[in-house]
Amino acid sequence: MEFKFSEKVSHLQASAIREILKYSADPEVISFAAGSPAPEALPAKELEELSKEILAEEPSIAFQYGVTEGYTPLREEVKKILAAQGVFNAEYDDVIITSGAQQANELSAKVLCNEGDTMLVEAPSFIGSLNAFKSYHVDLQGVTLEDDGINIAELEEKLKKGGVKLVYLIPNFQNPTGRTMSWEKRKQAFELCKKYGAVILEDNPYGDLRFAGEDIKSIKTLDTEGSVIYSGTFSKILSPGIRVGYVCAHRDIIQKIVVCKQVADVHTTMWSQMLCYRFLKKYDLAEHLKKLRKVYEHKTGLMISEIEKNFSSKITFTRPQGGLFIWCTLPEGVTTEQMVDFCTTAVKDYKIAIVPGTAFEIHDGDPTRSFRLNFSTPTDENIVKGMAILGRLSKEKFGE
Amino acid sequence: MEFKFSEKVSHLQASAIREILKYSADPEVISFAAGSPAPEALPAKELEELSKEILAEEPSIAFQYGVTEGYTPLREEVKKILAAQGVFNAEYDDVIITSGAQQANELSAKVLCNEGDTMLVEAPSFIGSLNAFKSYHVDLQGVTLEDDGINIAELEEKLKKGGVKLVYLIPNFQNPTGRTMSWEKRKQAFELCKKYGAVILEDNPYGDLRFAGEDIKSIKTLDTEGSVIYSGTFSKILSPGIRVGYVCAHRDIIQKIVVCKQVADVHTTMWSQMLCYRFLKKYDLAEHLKKLRKVYEHKTGLMISEIEKNFSSKITFTRPQGGLFIWCTLPEGVTTEQMVDFCTTAVKDYKIAIVPGTAFEIHDGDPTRSFRLNFSTPTDENIVKGMAILGRLSKEKFGE
Repeated sequence: MEFKFSEKVSHLQASAIREILKYSADPEVISFAAGSPAPEALPAKELEELSKEILAEEPSIAFQYGVTEGYTPLREEVKKILAAQGVFNAEYDDVIITSGAQQANELSAKVLCNEGDTMLVEAPSFIGSLNAFKSYHVDLQGVTLEDDGINIAELEEKLKKGGVKLVYLIPNFQNPTGRTMSWEKRKQAFELCKKYGAVILEDNPYGDLRFAGEDIKSIKTLDTEGSVIYSGTFSKILSPGIRVGYVCAHRDIIQKIVVCKQVADVHTTMWSQMLCYRFLKKYDLAEHLKKLRKVYEHKTGLMISEIEKNFSSKITFTRPQGGLFIWCTLPEGVTTEQMVDFCTTAVKDYKIAIVPGTAFEIHDGDPTRSFRLNFSTPTDENIVKGMAILGRLSKEKFGE
Repeated sequence: MEFKFSEKVSHLQASAIREILKYSADPEVISFAAGSPAPEALPAKELEELSKEILAEEPSIAFQYGVTEGYTPLREEVKKILAAQGVFNAEYDDVIITSGAQQANELSAKVLCNEGDTMLVEAPSFIGSLNAFKSYHVDLQGVTLEDDGINIAELEEKLKKGGVKLVYLIPNFQNPTGRTMSWEKRKQAFELCKKYGAVILEDNPYGDLRFAGEDIKSIKTLDTEGSVIYSGTFSKILSPGIRVGYVCAHRDIIQKIVVCKQVADVHTTMWSQMLCYRFLKKYDLAEHLKKLRKVYEHKTGLMISEIEKNFSSKITFTRPQGGLFIWCTLPEGVTTEQMVDFCTTAVKDYKIAIVPGTAFEIHDGDPTRSFRLNFSTPTDENIVKGMAILGRLSKEKFGE
């Protein structure tokens, strides 16, 4: 039978990352393609103990239906944390629990955008969000991402044209580039979006993973009337497999997101939400984050020194102060095809998985000569081994 | 700030059931408004034990990211179960795990329907699905639901007009009516949909909960080319709080659903999927279902005998052979307003929560004089007490 799929999904393809992750199923492949937190940084033992307590003490809450908005004690804890950061404004904001930040971002686009509405995103940006937005058939437009955040002049130019509904930003240790938006640019972007009536969707999955430099406040802290939606997650600090994120926004927006979440999955897994709540109550989050940051600081440092030691000197790369990713760019003149060929050769001939920049471009065919490296998942040994192999390959292809 | 929401969600309201569930937060309210499985029928102890095993033996699988399609061992088990029922056809079908059947139904509509496409549904039908479909701005049309399933002549008439993309049916112990579609009508509906090129979405959350009569095969067993999508769930037989469902369909459809699930929540909670898998491997599902059915048979029987004993004789009601719901209809001539008033009086003045039929109508304002009773959640004592109160109120309002 021939199926006619809806226009909004007929052009969506399975994510290139997921495809490359399938190569990684080969146990011999060393993967720098994932976006998973470091296994040694997940508090598995603590979560195991908390799980025992939950199922012994409150099985009927864990196993029965919950309300769509989320487990109330967890919502209250998240509100407290966000309020302390100036993100949650009790006057008009509300917070609900979502099935990962992915759901928060997807539903934000669903409630605000009609098909054909314009959304601006950093170019490049996170493929999962790009596909989520595309699945609602919005007119997605990229704004060039520079070392300190998007190009503000370009942002204004695009906002001026009118019709921009939503501006999606990952200000901290962006995926895929690892770049962080400066405070100056955050203020400028906020003022411009306010001026032109666009809502900002601020996605902050990595903000807790800063291991160098000074924290920069969220764009949401500038909000005075609810024009910023803020999403966060427990995926990178506790566990991604439990699928718990949250969204903080004006309560009128939250109310619509709740209706859409209700029809999406009714509610997020109760046990997962209870785990997060009990972790926050029983353990010192700040202490836990300190430990995490040490792991990440070590891994990034190791990867950067191995890149410096091994890679062709013509390859440039970012030096993130947090997060999970380093963004490498092949020499000027290298075509998209040559970059993809480099990545493909790496995984097929040398069993090293990296993600070609094409995966993060706004539209198929946008040119790019970059690729993404993840430093959180591989072991130290594999970082050394992998960077040596990639280094040899890069020198072969692009010279010393 | 004034927000302009997308047209597809601006008219969606929070489900009336959820609103009434909020009344149920008052511990004095006896709720017949839920759709939860009987607490005593959930294998909480078994799940607690299995959870301990999972977190002790495979924490890294439970806590890290999984693949969007679902936990492979669980997918294989579900395929085996569905193949034995003639539902899964290995030639062209595939099965993936979803975050409840709710997600399977929502994403089926998303991948097949453009805004404005026609979908046919039983009238009345499950509010969660109706809202999911409405959230994609489809043209939703009801087909009258009779005691043995939808009116086939009306179905054909609507199919003949052309442009019907998807026909949504809950053939077993339908929500909200408790009615079951006859084998004859299943065959007729299948042939008609095939003739007019419409895909059937067969939602079967309650099929395992038959406590009387003979099993009737799924519509999907008639499928020969992939024109039926079949969704199921572990919510009613193991636990709704863990949010595990599945969808079996032609692999071309599944492939599109996977892309949409990836952008919706990346994957379903790993622990939840592992729990279901281990339950299926360790316990005899048939034996477990036997125990469940006894609980449900007892509760329905009790509720029906209390209705017969107490209710105004002018109220008619269904006698389901399975599932969770009884559908009561007030005497001819009663208006929608009077029915809603009856339900409101019940919860406000007598602390008895029931769901007005308006919640299940296809469009706001469709007339109905019915309400839904759930017999699985309340205790025996509360069933007796609640039916006595509703009975007195019904006689007051509508005579002996």
